[in-house]
Amino acid sequence: MELIAVPGIPEIDPGDDLADLVADRIDLDPGAQSDERDRPGSPPVGDVLCIASTVVSKAEDRLADLEAFPAGPRAREIADRLEGITGEERDPRFAQAVLEESTDLVMEAPFLLTETRFGHVCVNAGIDRSNTGGADLLLLPKRPSESAARLSEALSVPVIVTDTCGRPFRHGQRGVAIGWAGLPASRDWRGERDRDGRELGVTVENVVDELAGAANLVAGEGGGGTPAVVVRGFEFGAMAGSDEQFRSVETDFVRQALRGWSHE
Amino acid sequence: MELIAVPGIPEIDPGDDLADLVADRIDLDPGAQSDERDRPGSPPVGDVLCIASTVVSKAEDRLADLEAFPAGPRAREIADRLEGITGEERDPRFAQAVLEESTDLVMEAPFLLTETRFGHVCVNAGIDRSNTGGADLLLLPKRPSESAARLSEALSVPVIVTDTCGRPFRHGQRGVAIGWAGLPASRDWRGERDRDGRELGVTVENVVDELAGAANLVAGEGGGGTPAVVVRGFEFGAMAGSDEQFRSVETDFVRQALRGWSHE
Repeated sequence: MELIAVPGIPEIDPGDDLADLVADRIDLDPGAQSDERDRPGSPPVGDVLCIASTVVSKAEDRLADLEAFPAGPRAREIADRLEGITGEERDPRFAQAVLEESTDLVMEAPFLLTETRFGHVCVNAGIDRSNTGGADLLLLPKRPSESAARLSEALSVPVIVTDTCGRPFRHGQRGVAIGWAGLPASRDWRGERDRDGRELGVTVENVVDELAGAANLVAGEGGGGTPAVVVRGFEFGAMAGSDEQFRSVETDFVRQALRGWSHE
Repeated sequence: MELIAVPGIPEIDPGDDLADLVADRIDLDPGAQSDERDRPGSPPVGDVLCIASTVVSKAEDRLADLEAFPAGPRAREIADRLEGITGEERDPRFAQAVLEESTDLVMEAPFLLTETRFGHVCVNAGIDRSNTGGADLLLLPKRPSESAARLSEALSVPVIVTDTCGRPFRHGQRGVAIGWAGLPASRDWRGERDRDGRELGVTVENVVDELAGAANLVAGEGGGGTPAVVVRGFEFGAMAGSDEQFRSVETDFVRQALRGWSHE
């Protein structure tokens, strides 16, 4: 399996055709027919394109200014509290933008952790204030798996829309998949057996997150980085696939614990 | 960057020399001199060997039987509670083994989430009951970064000891690094700038976890899998490195929340 950074992708403006910009810079190998790709036992998948959510957002014009988010009382309350805890000035309009992008507040302090409208739990609903091309804010794509599906359709390869985020228990950030199309999110090893013939304890391997993290290793960040990485020669294998990616509160004990918790 | 599964690694027995077994099957490229490797601005790292903790544990004879862990009152209490919740029989000696491998109980029910003696938070202290070569249990390596350092010394390439585990918010498991040597755990992008010249918001990228996840994509599981994967051509780049991997309770709000939480 090989990872290839796609060179020379320019700054993206709203309306740019990302599929064209990628196709002009690299010959993609579609591998197996798309209708065979996510069937168990299907032939190896060809290339997988991993693309950073930042450029997908820009192409989809998810740029916004703070004045588009006049703060309501809830946002003002959240910003005041964060200001008190951190000692840094907080714009309540930013809190308002986060609330409008979210369906659930997982944690309010000492930072805003929310569930986005498409199910992804991350800090500040993934809203970026860096590399926003002049606007105040860059919001995540509205429906990243639909964005991935459009790109996948145009390029005839599976596509993963990536982001980077932190996590409990472990330091640092790593790449994750927030949207995907053309391959299942996970490999389900249930029923497979170990060398002793015992059923495997590890059952569901989230391959889209592993692919997004691998792509992040060669993508770089900032001015010298590239938003597009091709994974060549990834074999999904013969096990079943699953498209579950984001846990519901009911199956997530950490979210349940955070519900009852309050930062001092 | 390329990922190469090392073929033909046999079943591992206590005392086996993993470095020899790998070196006999693949020519490793040491790349830069090891004393230059983790210095910022150093030349590209050559190969990185990712090796599954299961085989490291077997080579280090971390196999154990349940009878080695006579259950104390705490273990019996934990096992009883889990039995009540899950309706499945629980061996209190297994809970005892988990307690003895751990320094902190992060969560007691509906499953045992602990911090191992070397700082890794995972279910059941990472104790495996599958593919244990006849023993009841396979414990994680005692000090995985020391195991990695021994292998790295013998093979002259950086080494990552990998495991797979689940996580909050997202379904499925992915590969993670529980030990590493010869490269820093993270790249620290602080001070780097985006295309607009603004300082980057994403600051610390955990590369050893991303490498472990990438390796897991080609390693497979169970009988058909391989425990050793070589990453060829990974460039750490010119940014600073950091060796922080496991969060302390003080910097981990999820752990703080879980402390006060109790499953019904």
